[in-house]
Parts: sequence; C-alpha cells; structure tokens
Amino acid sequence: MHKLKLISTKAPKGMDKQATKTLLKHMTKEIGDYQHALYAEKKQSLLVIFQGVDASGKDGSTKKVFEECGTIGIDAFGFKKPTEEEFAHDFLWRVHQRAPAKGYIQIYNRSHYEDIIIQRVHKWIDLKRVKQRMDAINAFEQLLEFDNNTKVLKFYMHISKEKQRIKLQERIDDPARNWKHNSVDWKEALHWDEYMKAYEYAINNSVIPWHVVPVDQKWYRNFYIAKIVLQTLKKMNPQLPLLSAEDKRVMAEIQANLK
Amino acid sequence: MHKLKLISTKAPKGMDKQATKTLLKHMTKEIGDYQHALYAEKKQSLLVIFQGVDASGKDGSTKKVFEECGTIGIDAFGFKKPTEEEFAHDFLWRVHQRAPAKGYIQIYNRSHYEDIIIQRVHKWIDLKRVKQRMDAINAFEQLLEFDNNTKVLKFYMHISKEKQRIKLQERIDDPARNWKHNSVDWKEALHWDEYMKAYEYAINNSVIPWHVVPVDQKWYRNFYIAKIVLQTLKKMNPQLPLLSAEDKRVMAEIQANLK
Repeated sequence: MHKLKLISTKAPKGMDKQATKTLLKHMTKEIGDYQHALYAEKKQSLLVIFQGVDASGKDGSTKKVFEECGTIGIDAFGFKKPTEEEFAHDFLWRVHQRAPAKGYIQIYNRSHYEDIIIQRVHKWIDLKRVKQRMDAINAFEQLLEFDNNTKVLKFYMHISKEKQRIKLQERIDDPARNWKHNSVDWKEALHWDEYMKAYEYAINNSVIPWHVVPVDQKWYRNFYIAKIVLQTLKKMNPQLPLLSAEDKRVMAEIQANLK
Repeated sequence: MHKLKLISTKAPKGMDKQATKTLLKHMTKEIGDYQHALYAEKKQSLLVIFQGVDASGKDGSTKKVFEECGTIGIDAFGFKKPTEEEFAHDFLWRVHQRAPAKGYIQIYNRSHYEDIIIQRVHKWIDLKRVKQRMDAINAFEQLLEFDNNTKVLKFYMHISKEKQRIKLQERIDDPARNWKHNSVDWKEALHWDEYMKAYEYAINNSVIPWHVVPVDQKWYRNFYIAKIVLQTLKKMNPQLPLLSAEDKRVMAEIQANLK
C-alpha cells in the first residue's frame, strides 16, 4: 500500500550528481544497443507509460533516457483530450491502437490512466465506474504481456507541490519554455490533493506494479528511470537473429542460379 | 530530364572524408535544434521520403541524419507489402493516414512511389494506371504543401549495381547484419534495369522535385542528405512561441486569484 505523502520526491542523501550523470551516459548507450537488438529480433516489445501531474518531467525523461535509440523502432505518443470520435468509443479504444508491435518500444506520455485520474478528480465518473475501469486496465495490460510478449513499465512521476509550482512559473518567465505554458495547468494544480488520491488508487490497485520516481531533481529522475528500463531490457534479452548453416546453403543455391 | 545512368553514385573527387564527418556532426545537432523549434511552434511540418532499391541505405540515413532529434515529434515509418485491408482501398489511403501533423517530422521508408515502381516492374498495373497514379501522387503531395504547410522532401537513394550486390552479400556474411537478410531482395535485384526505368519515370514526372543522392559511400550520403534537410529547415524557419505582455498580464491575474 503506497502512501505518496510518505515517499520522498528527492534523491537520497549522499548521491554524487556528477558521477550519476556520467553513469547515465553509459546506460543510455546500452539502452540504445538493446533497442536495436529488440527491433532486429522482432519477438517482444516494451511499453513505457509515464504518468504524473503537469510539469512532472514526462517529456524530459523520454528525451533523455531514450536519446541513443534513434527514430526507427521507437515511438513516443502523447495522449491529449480525446477527440469526438474517441469519446464515442470505450476509453481503451484509442490506447489499444497505439500498443507496440513486436520489435518496438512504445512510450505513452499520459495514457488510459487519465480516464481514472483526471476523470475522477473532476467527478465526471462515479466510483463504480472507476473500479470497473481499473479492472479493465488490469485485464488490458495483462493481455499485452501474455498475448504479445509486451513488457509493460509504468512510471509515476512523483513531484512535490512546491517543485511543480516552480516549474510552471519557469514556463512563464523563460522565453525558451513559453511554448510549454498553458493556463489550464494552473487550474488543475488547485486539485492537488484529489490528484494524489486518484494516483494512489491507481498505484495501489494495479496488477502490474508501478515505479514511483522521485523527480524533483532531473539528474536523479533520469538515472532512476534509465536503471529500470535497462534492467528490464537486460531481462528481456533480445537476440540478433542469425542465419543458420542451412539458410546459407539455400542462399548459395539461389545465388548460383542468379549468375 | 534525369538519366540515372549519367549521374554518379559516388562522392565527388577531392572531398575530405574526415572533415565531412566532422561537419556532419554539427549539422545533425542543428537539425535537432530546428526539430525542437518545429515541434514547439506547431505551424508547419516536414515529410521526408526515402526511396531506393534494397540495401540503398534508407534506414541508415534515417538513423544518422536525425540522430539528434530524440523521439518526441518525429516518426519513421516503413511501408511494407500492403495488408488485405490496405489493398481493399486506393493506394494513397494508408499513406495519407501517416502524413505528419503540424509540428512533426515524418519519415517514410518507401512510400506511395512503390505503387508505381515495384508494381510497374512486375507489370501488375498497365501504363495508363501508372500515369493516373503519378497524377494522383502529384496532387496529393501538393495538397500536403498548400493545405497543411507540409514541406515534402524526396530522396532517391542512387546506388550502383555493384555496391548493392556487395551490401546484400554482407548481410549473409556478417552475423550482425544477418537480421536484414531476405532472399527476396536477391530476386528483385535481377530486375535492375526495369527498376531504374521506373525510378526515372517517377523522378521525371514529379511536380515536387527529387534529390538524387549518391549513396555508394555512407559518409557522403549522410552529408548530402543532412545538407538538404538543414537548408530546408532553415528556410522553414520555425519559431519558439513566446508569451506576449498581455498573456503575462492575464496570467498574473489568474495567479492572484489562485493564492
């Protein structure tokens, strides 16, 4: 049972920032190599879900942790307010379409969890519906794992209220961040306690466990996520497919006929 | 009027490989910066089409030229043999779905041109249909440009017959490349002359012009493509949106009410 209030949003004391950053560089390279093997192998896939309040670092983590992965075989998709067509379907409809095919890493910036978080915060759905949706989410995520070899990694971006306020203010004050500013975020920030409650429910009722990431310092946040992603890819252990002696013999025959 | 036989597949004499590679590093960084601005701005988009025979370096160029772009706001999609559902629609149906939204760079590895290239080489369609499709392609690409501010860049990967053979053989001999091997490529390679004729038709009848890239040496290929991509992004000149004084005044009001 997670109580978010009891979990630190900061790096543990005594961590060396510079040493961690150096280590991260090696880790992102390794993540890049594994992604290449995953794509070549095409037998399994990885779904990475980032959830958290506004300015909690979902985009920044995507950029940094996967920076050595290139553009082939990996995609980051941000779920926005559903369109009319999407609203006319069940809440998992649009999410299912974006599930990764074998060989791919798919990143969700926000996800089906919004449908039990923002929807619950604003009381657009009742608690019975929240519970039904939670059950459907559990079934869906397990479907991906057992029926398509998709490993599901879920990160809750655990930011402090104070740090969120600072980061939202930076978007107003720093011209390079102006494009990220949205006055709606300030209104949502007023519902802090309800958001925490909704996240706790999701975290405590998920069959596939969440990773609660302390995100107040970027350098620690990136390291924390990269470590889990790397461990996961290592366990998945994707292998470059090799041609067998028989494959090569057949190929030599084809080539002999070509010339 | 392009005659592919008369265009070199190699770097011009006297080019300095090491100096070019160093320059490329700076160029890919610049491309990354422009992509970030394009994504922040969300007013225009870039479609990059790579076409060429097997092993002509479509994937490799994607990886290298866009390596500093990260995973957000850019996507590379490879068009394969159409599915049954796709075949049941017009040839542009599946392609249109993948067109980039404002703010995005979309890379096509193969494209709607396959429908007048492989289809023509194997005579699955007659010349009248080829011409009709070429007209439809011209209309489609111009639609993207005038109606969604999408700049369309098309690269024909110009490889020599000898270099293609060497690269296909490497896929058999080098375990790290085994996963790219496909015996079908060897059969397609037999149709070399028909492929060149089909590409010449596409290149000479396109309204939006093609770039014919000499690809026999990777280092020159990457430089050539990166240069055109960078020039194009510079001309597009995407701007980070800034908050106006009025925006900031309104925001201060909202914040005052929050506290």
